[in-house]
Amino acid sequence: MRGIIGYLVTPFGADGSPDLDSLSKLVDHLIAQDIHGIAPLGSTGESAYLNDREWAAVAQTTIKAAAGRVPVIVGASALTTADTVTMCRSAEQWGADAVMVLPLSYWKLTDDEIFDHYATVAQAISIPIMAYNNPATAGVDMSPELLYRMYRDIDNVTMVKESSGDIQRMHALHLLSNGDLPFFNGCNPLALEAFAAGAAGWCTAAPNLIGGPIKAMWDAVQANDFRAARGLFLDNLDLLSFILSGGLPATVKAGLDLMGMPCGSPRLPLQPLSNADRATLANMLKLATT
Amino acid sequence: MRGIIGYLVTPFGADGSPDLDSLSKLVDHLIAQDIHGIAPLGSTGESAYLNDREWAAVAQTTIKAAAGRVPVIVGASALTTADTVTMCRSAEQWGADAVMVLPLSYWKLTDDEIFDHYATVAQAISIPIMAYNNPATAGVDMSPELLYRMYRDIDNVTMVKESSGDIQRMHALHLLSNGDLPFFNGCNPLALEAFAAGAAGWCTAAPNLIGGPIKAMWDAVQANDFRAARGLFLDNLDLLSFILSGGLPATVKAGLDLMGMPCGSPRLPLQPLSNADRATLANMLKLATT
Amino acid sequence: MRGIIGYLVTPFGADGSPDLDSLSKLVDHLIAQDIHGIAPLGSTGESAYLNDREWAAVAQTTIKAAAGRVPVIVGASALTTADTVTMCRSAEQWGADAVMVLPLSYWKLTDDEIFDHYATVAQAISIPIMAYNNPATAGVDMSPELLYRMYRDIDNVTMVKESSGDIQRMHALHLLSNGDLPFFNGCNPLALEAFAAGAAGWCTAAPNLIGGPIKAMWDAVQANDFRAARGLFLDNLDLLSFILSGGLPATVKAGLDLMGMPCGSPRLPLQPLSNADRATLANMLKLATT
Amino acid sequence: MRGIIGYLVTPFGADGSPDLDSLSKLVDHLIAQDIHGIAPLGSTGESAYLNDREWAAVAQTTIKAAAGRVPVIVGASALTTADTVTMCRSAEQWGADAVMVLPLSYWKLTDDEIFDHYATVAQAISIPIMAYNNPATAGVDMSPELLYRMYRDIDNVTMVKESSGDIQRMHALHLLSNGDLPFFNGCNPLALEAFAAGAAGWCTAAPNLIGGPIKAMWDAVQANDFRAARGLFLDNLDLLSFILSGGLPATVKAGLDLMGMPCGSPRLPLQPLSNADRATLANMLKLATT
Repeated sequence: MRGIIGYLVTPFGADGSPDLDSLSKLVDHLIAQDIHGIAPLGSTGESAYLNDREWAAVAQTTIKAAAGRVPVIVGASALTTADTVTMCRSAEQWGADAVMVLPLSYWKLTDDEIFDHYATVAQAISIPIMAYNNPATAGVDMSPELLYRMYRDIDNVTMVKESSGDIQRMHALHLLSNGDLPFFNGCNPLALEAFAAGAAGWCTAAPNLIGGPIKAMWDAVQANDFRAARGLFLDNLDLLSFILSGGLPATVKAGLDLMGMPCGSPRLPLQPLSNADRATLANMLKLATT
Repeated sequence: MRGIIGYLVTPFGADGSPDLDSLSKLVDHLIAQDIHGIAPLGSTGESAYLNDREWAAVAQTTIKAAAGRVPVIVGASALTTADTVTMCRSAEQWGADAVMVLPLSYWKLTDDEIFDHYATVAQAISIPIMAYNNPATAGVDMSPELLYRMYRDIDNVTMVKESSGDIQRMHALHLLSNGDLPFFNGCNPLALEAFAAGAAGWCTAAPNLIGGPIKAMWDAVQANDFRAARGLFLDNLDLLSFILSGGLPATVKAGLDLMGMPCGSPRLPLQPLSNADRATLANMLKLATT
Repeated sequence: MRGIIGYLVTPFGADGSPDLDSLSKLVDHLIAQDIHGIAPLGSTGESAYLNDREWAAVAQTTIKAAAGRVPVIVGASALTTADTVTMCRSAEQWGADAVMVLPLSYWKLTDDEIFDHYATVAQAISIPIMAYNNPATAGVDMSPELLYRMYRDIDNVTMVKESSGDIQRMHALHLLSNGDLPFFNGCNPLALEAFAAGAAGWCTAAPNLIGGPIKAMWDAVQANDFRAARGLFLDNLDLLSFILSGGLPATVKAGLDLMGMPCGSPRLPLQPLSNADRATLANMLKLATT
Repeated sequence: MRGIIGYLVTPFGADGSPDLDSLSKLVDHLIAQDIHGIAPLGSTGESAYLNDREWAAVAQTTIKAAAGRVPVIVGASALTTADTVTMCRSAEQWGADAVMVLPLSYWKLTDDEIFDHYATVAQAISIPIMAYNNPATAGVDMSPELLYRMYRDIDNVTMVKESSGDIQRMHALHLLSNGDLPFFNGCNPLALEAFAAGAAGWCTAAPNLIGGPIKAMWDAVQANDFRAARGLFLDNLDLLSFILSGGLPATVKAGLDLMGMPCGSPRLPLQPLSNADRATLANMLKLATT
């Protein structure tokens, strides 16, 4: 697995529950951006705010809508190991190509607790696990040493997604594994540098809004043309940073609405984008498409 | 409400589900420490790791076992506003004297999102809310300014529990409210200083293990005898710090087991205390009781 | 040595050099506040901004003006070990009762480099050294473990001044030394809690401006009357925080000027207090004295 | 000015004073690495640990030894504005091509204090100033907004050196100035990404030890061949990180000694490399040259 992995939001209907029809259309929209994979139920997908039934419906609908056109990586993360096992098993059974597992925490976890958590989950399934480090949302930070140890010692942990935004983590993963461990970047404003450092791909919600430049940037990187990649990146950096700092569910939903694909507001306590921020985003989208 | 509020662990039986008989006995044990209130389903109570039915059973059992002997403050915190409202309403209906609400987060919340979250919850119930700041577990930090604004503008927000361990937050709450806002300390190694700074009380799991010194310290503070309070505090500081840094569910359960009140292990991925740490704790308990 | 240690500013004359007459008057003013010691050439004294000759003149003038009425602790800190030795030897020769040594840094120092620095300095003199931890100004942070090791193993290191503002450091010094190591608090907004935790004293510039309440607070602490101490502390906390956050040289000089003891501006790039901040300070001083 | 700027250590002789003969040879050695400029009296050059006479001797000797073959950027930073002006004027008079000014601090400086400091210095000279941000050593952090404001509003501030290691600062400088502000990277382990982001150059001590790969990496970047640049960077990253984390004066001096160019130890309290670290470095140098 390599390339651009696009995140899906979870659209909500008027009654506040997942709007599965809109979700199917978003799958089509995202695949139409000519990217390499899609990922429902990540941070952008408000997975943490869904109940079990809602999570299942979103996973199943996405896999069905994708219909094998691109791989589907399902976010499957819970506070307890038991719930995480259940989710990963379900995802596998429904046809997911891989799962992305974030070590959610309330009490901080030790490295051994995290390792055992992933080992237990991995033993329960036979599809690949993307170990996902995002200390800002998970409340726990996995060091490159721990990530590498899990990659080396746990069979199904085959790739890492790094969203800490610290390029030195990526260097460390490279050095620890002699360049063997495929790492994906999950921090939009670090995309250019992650590619420079050898990232296998970029997991991002941006293709929902600016699919063309994202794909062009990937192609420039593949052609080893970093001058072109830099131009594309810097031209879109304001937008890439804006959608992250405003909270991806709120900003991406606002952007999709501006583009004629309404999918409701984020779930409370998360609030929709303010009118001022929405206007800013509208301007950025106009600039991006001209 | 003032004084020592004791936290309850959630005991688990052999099958991994809450052991309600043991819980009732723990309620008796904790009330026997002559403290001023008890709090189930907080951080110590592994609330975040329970499903809805388990949470309900623990809340109901605790309230029934307390039987009005001391006030019961029920931890009622969820990622969504809707779930938090449901929990708080249930707690009120079952007879809770107050609820303790922590703003759990995945995406960071803005001050306005947090304010609206508490306002919505407060409108749904008529018992007092203790606004609980614990950035290390909640993933979001409420400033003294925000806490004071909620205390001032939201009817049922009547007290604050500060667990950040930063004494300057308590000073700020005092200055902002002209000494009006009752704040409780939730950080064991700061207990002495929080009382010096005028805290209304101390929310702590320590009475499960060393009820005598904790109560004696409170009495010394009430008598304005801080020399005595300091002696009691410093004599027990190693233990107070140890049970916090090892994760309260694991350390308090180990301590209760050592005292003849087994209540199972924390729920995975949280692991029980290692044998070495358990031996350290046993020694501390011996010193504390002699 | 115990009690309130008052910091001196370094007054500058119209030509920008130290105004030694004004300095002598400030020494009298500070001793008149009935405190237990005075300290020239600390952070408040802009020691880091003086050249060798200026530093010598300030040290000699202060010691002479004090004339044995109270102990004088001279700040003697340089980036190199050799310069620090020279300064400490001079201070001893001129009659200082003790020196306060801060490990200034450009490159971060290892614990061993800091230990050897203090050991070399201590061997060169025979008066006591107050090891001074202030990571915000020194650029290097000394752990309680390192401070205790120096206290235990280096003959003239007999006391510690902690200005990190972290009360847990003071607890750690107590536990490591079984209550033997005398620690002074150097963070104004932590004064009440440091006394609660057993501090031997408080090093502060505040007596320049509000000598009465500071001395009264010390007396209340000595009488184990922390309710009274808390009242005095909280009544003056706004001022204590203000003079720290605005930079002590600028704020204390402005305050002294407002009180009729002009002593010039801080040395550039440090700028004097803005007019707005000066008005705020004037109000605080009025409140403090009524 | 663009490209690789090489840092000089300050060699010390047996008596502990600057060894100017060795310094001249180091200048030749560094220029022989085919780089684009040299910089004495930076962090690597232990500038902060030298007295005025020593600083002057090192500056003059370097400029004379360079003899116009490459531009010389002299580090000229002091705690006071007045001393900084004096140093910058001297450097200009002796023939420096530019000065590199770091806002040294004891008390934290406000943005206005920093701006006025640079403005005063700039007015006193007519050669370019490289504004140097290195919060770890200077104790004060200049935001991209402040750096851009100084670049825009102060005539001689014509370039920035960013050593914070945060790639987002470089992006911010680009966006704020519409790509106009030339920024140099000063953090070795970020060199690849800084070039990807458009850095005008790299200020580094590494050419003292591994001139070949550093120059080859620059050439690859100029040829827009980032795959080659990445290979060169990752092959040497262990060494680039090692010399930084061990303190550049100690590690680079050890490396030069291993290469047959002894230049003494760093000045105390800085200690020379331990034998173990020296052996590690020797191995890295062997790998780099084979």
